[in-house]
Amino acid sequence: MIPTPYLLFLGDAPDALAAKVAQGIKDWRPDNAVGQFRLPACGTTVGIDDLTLQEAWDAGARTLVIGVANRGGIISQAWKDVLIKALQMGYDLASGLHNLLRDEDDLVSAARVAGRTLHDVRVPSTAYPIANGLKRTGKRCLAVGTDCSVGKMYTGLAMDAEMAKRGMKSTFRPTGQTGILITGGGVPLDAVVADFMAGAIEYLTPDNDEDHWDHIEGQGSLFHASYSGVTMALIHGGQPDALVLAHEPTRTHMRGLPTYDLPSLEALRELSLQVARVVNPDVQVIGISVNTQHLSEGDANAYLKEVEDRMGLPAVDPFRHGAGRLVDALAAL
Amino acid sequence: MIPTPYLLFLGDAPDALAAKVAQGIKDWRPDNAVGQFRLPACGTTVGIDDLTLQEAWDAGARTLVIGVANRGGIISQAWKDVLIKALQMGYDLASGLHNLLRDEDDLVSAARVAGRTLHDVRVPSTAYPIANGLKRTGKRCLAVGTDCSVGKMYTGLAMDAEMAKRGMKSTFRPTGQTGILITGGGVPLDAVVADFMAGAIEYLTPDNDEDHWDHIEGQGSLFHASYSGVTMALIHGGQPDALVLAHEPTRTHMRGLPTYDLPSLEALRELSLQVARVVNPDVQVIGISVNTQHLSEGDANAYLKEVEDRMGLPAVDPFRHGAGRLVDALAAL
Repeated sequence: MIPTPYLLFLGDAPDALAAKVAQGIKDWRPDNAVGQFRLPACGTTVGIDDLTLQEAWDAGARTLVIGVANRGGIISQAWKDVLIKALQMGYDLASGLHNLLRDEDDLVSAARVAGRTLHDVRVPSTAYPIANGLKRTGKRCLAVGTDCSVGKMYTGLAMDAEMAKRGMKSTFRPTGQTGILITGGGVPLDAVVADFMAGAIEYLTPDNDEDHWDHIEGQGSLFHASYSGVTMALIHGGQPDALVLAHEPTRTHMRGLPTYDLPSLEALRELSLQVARVVNPDVQVIGISVNTQHLSEGDANAYLKEVEDRMGLPAVDPFRHGAGRLVDALAAL
Repeated sequence: MIPTPYLLFLGDAPDALAAKVAQGIKDWRPDNAVGQFRLPACGTTVGIDDLTLQEAWDAGARTLVIGVANRGGIISQAWKDVLIKALQMGYDLASGLHNLLRDEDDLVSAARVAGRTLHDVRVPSTAYPIANGLKRTGKRCLAVGTDCSVGKMYTGLAMDAEMAKRGMKSTFRPTGQTGILITGGGVPLDAVVADFMAGAIEYLTPDNDEDHWDHIEGQGSLFHASYSGVTMALIHGGQPDALVLAHEPTRTHMRGLPTYDLPSLEALRELSLQVARVVNPDVQVIGISVNTQHLSEGDANAYLKEVEDRMGLPAVDPFRHGAGRLVDALAAL
């Protein structure tokens, strides 16, 4: 686990997209973010106080999180002074960038001298077990997508937040870099060695109270030729009781695979249930999460109604309309 | 690739089971094995000449392959004198053991001095790409199992050998340690990082002649909670044109998962086709390979006939009866 709360390092992020990790932390775990730190070249904000390293430390921050992504996932030389100063003050550093903190000699050296830890959330730090397939107590919900990057993480975070608001027992279980930085822990599934993928998910979602829900962050798609194995391991390691189908209706082909069409929601439902029943015969699809960001309000509502009628399941965009109806469906199970 | 031919090191293998890697090489690639090397404590043979390091070198051997597996996959101290002597003479070493050659300081040092290579086939030595899902030329056949360890590697090797005998174009493509040692190259899929699994299989089975068949070694099972993600990546990276269903009829539960029943052959056919059609709509199941080693000849034949009638597909045990009928079915595609 990464020590919380954080100071969010936005560096020289030129725009909101470059700061989306920091924004995710601020949106979903505001208690984890005491403030932001921007360099003079920064062109965006996540809408919280600008604090110095000392002010944030005094406010309780114990990790400086690199909340900016640049082209290539590089750790910029322009950031180094601040990062090294933070280590010297007693901060840990955390990053989900492709280039690793641990590969930067000056950071490694400063961390060693200060006795601090460099958290590269892109690589696993745990020796995960081989999955044993045993039934665990508690309930689990997983979003499965027609494609990659259709809103599965957002769906899980929104359902978790809605359940927390209602006083229901719920935990979001990250399986990717952004989710791990948001919550401070999780499994970077795409970087786990093949034999241990399902075991890593069992490890991530242990026994729990019978009325507790884990919202496991989805990855990839059973229909995505590049990443379907990751999705499969997620389903079999996660043993979901409930599935949410996730879709982005304006996508013209599978992400990164121009020769592949997206599957229908019906095909996704059929294959996901068939696969999930291997580990949990009682699994049910409880709703559909549609990412309507590229549709007007009118088009989005028309599309959602059409899908809802066709599939006989609640269809919502949790970003536009909240996850309330998905949580209603979970609670009705 | 591992330099061939080999001298097979049986070490102190107490019985045939402990020497099964060496036996596999001798059975399937006899041209790769100029002889065997046994220590005084060895209690078995693979039925080829015992040669000294010098005799084998003179016969052309260029790699000493550790063809023995002991409990825990340890590199025994009792083997070290021979292994170091071999390196000094100019041999490479190859091993599929859990403990790596490269973690033995004395072997690393001897290899460096002699300018030789230590081949640990359990770990990938290639930076595999992310799968692109593009259709490749040539044909591919994959065995998918109701469970792990039901004879998928054997099926692929037997079909490859039968096609070679008939003068058909064919290559066995290993995805596990034993297969890699048998042929001298391949992808240790269970050790590949999740995001690159399917890409590793695309890399393993590149474009080829239109009438050439790759026999891709199967792994795991879509129904095995621990390893299904590996199988999924194998299907989507492999883009098989033909599937063979593999089964062991006396298994009472999934291997290593005492609470899981095996799926029916019908369920395996249905799910495998559904998954494989994502990347190749024309894929067909061409036959069934049954491992009947625990059945009498009479029971085996009765079982095969029953399966054949029920499934409407040729059902054979390639070990008992050869892979001829499976190759007939492939050739008829």
